[in-house]
Amino acid sequence: MTTDLSDAPLRLTFLGTGDAAQTPAYGCHCPACERARRDESRRRRPCSALLEAGGQRYLIDSGLTDLAERFPAGSLDGILQTHYHADHAQGLLHLRWGKGAPLPVLGPPDPEGFADLYKHPGPLDFSNPFQAFERRALGQHRKPGGQIFVTAILLAHSKITFGYLIEYGERKLAYLTDTSGLPDESKTFLQQFRLDALILDCTHPPTAPDAPARPQNHNDLTRALADAHAIAPAKTCLTHISHTLDAWLEHHPLPDNSPPATSFAYDGLALEYSNSRQCV
Amino acid sequence: MTTDLSDAPLRLTFLGTGDAAQTPAYGCHCPACERARRDESRRRRPCSALLEAGGQRYLIDSGLTDLAERFPAGSLDGILQTHYHADHAQGLLHLRWGKGAPLPVLGPPDPEGFADLYKHPGPLDFSNPFQAFERRALGQHRKPGGQIFVTAILLAHSKITFGYLIEYGERKLAYLTDTSGLPDESKTFLQQFRLDALILDCTHPPTAPDAPARPQNHNDLTRALADAHAIAPAKTCLTHISHTLDAWLEHHPLPDNSPPATSFAYDGLALEYSNSRQCV
Repeated sequence: MTTDLSDAPLRLTFLGTGDAAQTPAYGCHCPACERARRDESRRRRPCSALLEAGGQRYLIDSGLTDLAERFPAGSLDGILQTHYHADHAQGLLHLRWGKGAPLPVLGPPDPEGFADLYKHPGPLDFSNPFQAFERRALGQHRKPGGQIFVTAILLAHSKITFGYLIEYGERKLAYLTDTSGLPDESKTFLQQFRLDALILDCTHPPTAPDAPARPQNHNDLTRALADAHAIAPAKTCLTHISHTLDAWLEHHPLPDNSPPATSFAYDGLALEYSNSRQCV
Repeated sequence: MTTDLSDAPLRLTFLGTGDAAQTPAYGCHCPACERARRDESRRRRPCSALLEAGGQRYLIDSGLTDLAERFPAGSLDGILQTHYHADHAQGLLHLRWGKGAPLPVLGPPDPEGFADLYKHPGPLDFSNPFQAFERRALGQHRKPGGQIFVTAILLAHSKITFGYLIEYGERKLAYLTDTSGLPDESKTFLQQFRLDALILDCTHPPTAPDAPARPQNHNDLTRALADAHAIAPAKTCLTHISHTLDAWLEHHPLPDNSPPATSFAYDGLALEYSNSRQCV
């Protein structure tokens, strides 16, 4: 017997909203790190999320190192991998020594991958990477319910990296980390859509556009807000947040020129949408 | 004011006694993995230990991924790294984005290291690797108390790997993972000493010496016991134990020909010795 899941909501839960250093960072005594040591709810773990819709569950990035406990074998349909830096892929190092059905890891076609994952993949199946701007139905015919479509969006990072446009019924989300600005073709592509939510890299506090050391691999707040303006989603959630930005935010509000409905994500935050354009 | 720590005991605490898959392994339903899911005390985390003596604290291997919480910055004097496989080095991936005084990571001279650790070392100091059979005083002149001497012992693994002979006053321990047998020069070297404890890789259940697929990179029980016999320590603790060996042990005792005082380590086990030859 099967259950009709076509009316099941689309849910995206932020499992981690930190940068590579996480908050608290090892050995750091800035106000944001000290606060996170006192108050577990202010921690920021490796940037990752859980996507649930139509009876399917996909992890977005695998930098958490307790994936076996959070997601016992069989509880995930696959992993959407933005790229293969350690803070986004480290959790795979344990899973690959496990057993069971193949677990698809769908990421960019990165010939290096991370560490020796490709050499010893175990149950992890890296054989079907996305190509840039490829649109793919996830888990087609596997379970009843609304279909999830995912398009790989090329990002601007130090290693080949994709964000993902997620479409589910009338709903559209874009999840874009790690990136410093957006390639023109990606921005133009995303501007076609009226996104329900844009989830966007915002690692650093604002730096002046002419600053000598403007971040090269991640957005600062200025650049993130500019791209959010350009894409004009209904809602913007900023993530991949460094402890430096958290400390800055203790004394600075969001700039007045921020797009409407802009906020900072936190670990555990869930965005939930019905299959049609009515918020649950 | 300083405290005389020369009478402080030598303590080695097993933080993890598992192999790369750990126990429970992801997706595995063997009796050992199911038991470890029910009973936290039967888990086996990544193989590693804490060495404490003379007011100094050294971590042996860094495969645990919660090192920042277990060992806040400043609480370790350094890390003895047996080699740079993921299950022995993965925890460094987070620490290297931290702040503070350099943390010496003393391992073999492995030009690859692990992932991009050498490229982005942060506070980790990889600049003083051991050479095979080099004997070195740890933390000399840094703290009062008995001096720890460490000698790097060449092991037989798929990547350059050292075990360590640890000398503290009259006490001598050898910590030897990961290895499949021992190179002749290492065995001969160790046979010079009357070890208080030999801590030895024992990953797999016994396989016949003429078995077609005898383990290449780790000891099975047969080989571990043979090397323990050859070295003849006062006590042998077997570690780096796979879930397969744990399942085998549910129905098999240690062979009758095992050296005296042979046992299997478990996570949390501590060996403690006074500076002179009298057990605390």
